Amino acid sequence: MEVAQVLHMNGGVGDASYANNSLVQQKVISLTKPIREEAITSLYCSTLPRSLAIADLGCSSGPNTLFVASELIKTVEKLCRKLNHKSPEYRVFLNDLPGNDFNNIFKSLDSFKKKLQTEVAGGIGPCYFSGVPGSFYARAFPNQSLHFVHSSYSLQWLSKVPEDVDNNKGNIYLNRTSPSNVVRAYYDQFQRDFSVFLKCRAEELVQGGRMVLTFLGRRNEDPCSKDGCYIWELMATALNDMVSQGIIKEEQVDSFNIPQYTPSPSEVKLEVVKEGSFAINRLEVSEVNWNAFDDWNALDFESERFESIGDGGYNVAQCMRAVAEPMLVSHFGEDIIEEVFSRYQQILADRMSKEKTQFFNVTVLLSRKD
Amino acid sequence: MEVAQVLHMNGGVGDASYANNSLVQQKVISLTKPIREEAITSLYCSTLPRSLAIADLGCSSGPNTLFVASELIKTVEKLCRKLNHKSPEYRVFLNDLPGNDFNNIFKSLDSFKKKLQTEVAGGIGPCYFSGVPGSFYARAFPNQSLHFVHSSYSLQWLSKVPEDVDNNKGNIYLNRTSPSNVVRAYYDQFQRDFSVFLKCRAEELVQGGRMVLTFLGRRNEDPCSKDGCYIWELMATALNDMVSQGIIKEEQVDSFNIPQYTPSPSEVKLEVVKEGSFAINRLEVSEVNWNAFDDWNALDFESERFESIGDGGYNVAQCMRAVAEPMLVSHFGEDIIEEVFSRYQQILADRMSKEKTQFFNVTVLLSRKD
Repeated sequence: MEVAQVLHMNGGVGDASYANNSLVQQKVISLTKPIREEAITSLYCSTLPRSLAIADLGCSSGPNTLFVASELIKTVEKLCRKLNHKSPEYRVFLNDLPGNDFNNIFKSLDSFKKKLQTEVAGGIGPCYFSGVPGSFYARAFPNQSLHFVHSSYSLQWLSKVPEDVDNNKGNIYLNRTSPSNVVRAYYDQFQRDFSVFLKCRAEELVQGGRMVLTFLGRRNEDPCSKDGCYIWELMATALNDMVSQGIIKEEQVDSFNIPQYTPSPSEVKLEVVKEGSFAINRLEVSEVNWNAFDDWNALDFESERFESIGDGGYNVAQCMRAVAEPMLVSHFGEDIIEEVFSRYQQILADRMSKEKTQFFNVTVLLSRKD
Repeated sequence: MEVAQVLHMNGGVGDASYANNSLVQQKVISLTKPIREEAITSLYCSTLPRSLAIADLGCSSGPNTLFVASELIKTVEKLCRKLNHKSPEYRVFLNDLPGNDFNNIFKSLDSFKKKLQTEVAGGIGPCYFSGVPGSFYARAFPNQSLHFVHSSYSLQWLSKVPEDVDNNKGNIYLNRTSPSNVVRAYYDQFQRDFSVFLKCRAEELVQGGRMVLTFLGRRNEDPCSKDGCYIWELMATALNDMVSQGIIKEEQVDSFNIPQYTPSPSEVKLEVVKEGSFAINRLEVSEVNWNAFDDWNALDFESERFESIGDGGYNVAQCMRAVAEPMLVSHFGEDIIEEVFSRYQQILADRMSKEKTQFFNVTVLLSRKD
């Protein structure tokens, strides 16, 4: 599986699209707002850029895509009013892998920009948006061309499935039953990938530039602990049930491994310190229910996003489908997809009725050292 | 009709796609290569940029999209070898209206970049591609951020259908039977649009920056002369035949007007001189047969592009369909499309068998004055 080719959220705006099934990710973005505000405020006040370059890495395609940019621009405009500064020019770079549905984002840009202009009293500085397709595990921007990098719920995705994980039988991700070489391979891949990421961004950011990165992570130091792995374990259960009924071949499940690693706070910190280009200004953790509707404050959001409220199992299955369907289709073919997610939904509903199920998030605020 | 919403080439890679029906446009790009070579050579030698920013405006989506960028990069690399310079970094901005199929371009970028690296002995400097959705009749890039602007077969499209052309009865574009107010309205719109274009680009280009612009144009000073209008007149014939058979309502054809103006060389020159930011280094004209296969040197091209050779009427109808279908669908609905283009194909085949049918091109090379 070539991750750069098959890893992308479901495109379009249909029932199974990421655009319509990304409330968890939106909730996480909302939870980490104070860190971004702190970061953009200190960046603006320390560098006073006339042209502010912001990149969102792993921007996806949907209501979340432009949300962070609009929030950052609003914060800078408030600062400008307070300090009696002229608004800067904004350059916003939306990055994701080439399979992302950029067309969908681009079609919404005009109305987004008009709305943003009306939402800020006195208007905002000129905004230039562009789409930058490509992996963030390589250089994606020119030297010292960025002031602010944001990435949320993207960096847990690895650049590829780790090598030598053939003996991860019956699992599709790390699990308590995963052999130690598999655990090591996943962690090694995370270290290599995140260190390349930091090195590339260090070259692309100006001195004093800031990054706010949120990982889907885990609280426990054990990479096979439940908080990082349970959501995939239940998907493996659905797939293994289909193996036992002869619908899928066992080898197919054995050879399918999710290119993801959910790091602990200390694992994130360790790589940043080892790579050496960035100072850690903040390291925070947060939690969000698998079913984002559970703890949602309806007043935070436009009502149309609530039309599709179903039961918890359905919501979580749809959310995971929006994220994982292209990978599953690439490995198993299209025919089994409905069946997998129908079974997954039932399994999820059962577990969620019996225990508290949460995603754990790790957020870091980093500054490019001089 | 909101031009920015409905003007885009047919997306995807199917039979009616622009990607598969853009040989005429490719032929034009090929004809104007010497002007681009002169422009990029003089630009490079006079400014020696370490980071070279190139924008292609109206890039569309297909084999032509990346062709100009690759050609420009190859020319610069040759110069670097000759002058013993280190390769610059390239920033390539692909611009088109938001309805353009950017996804299709982005998916081909990785293999394009790999191919380009192998085609140049010693490799090329780092390349950063991005997609910039939006009209070029407004600011699309930050101040003084571009070195080289290219646009081919895009600037004949107006920002909107001119106002007050309601009495252009039986026509869908300018025609000998068009009332004088309609002719004036079209020319006024061209002047306004092209002058805004020049003003915006003057702000975006660095001093000494170059632009190479190719218009679908006309040789004759009369805007209703055959060379600019005949291709649309024949489409109007197909539509009017359907009116007389009761398939389309007369008012529908009367209210449909193509947002295009095919300027003469002197009209292009006049606007550049009036606007004042640019010096005209070159103004050239060229011609290309409606059926690009007629005068094509098969050795110039990869063989797979020749698989779809049909008769001339078919080729030209498909080419025009790739360009005009979204506009026709928006105005007339989808149901009549097959019928329109089947009739159009027959009319085209008949005319092409009896007379020489050519597009006329106007190309200017401009330099941003100090």
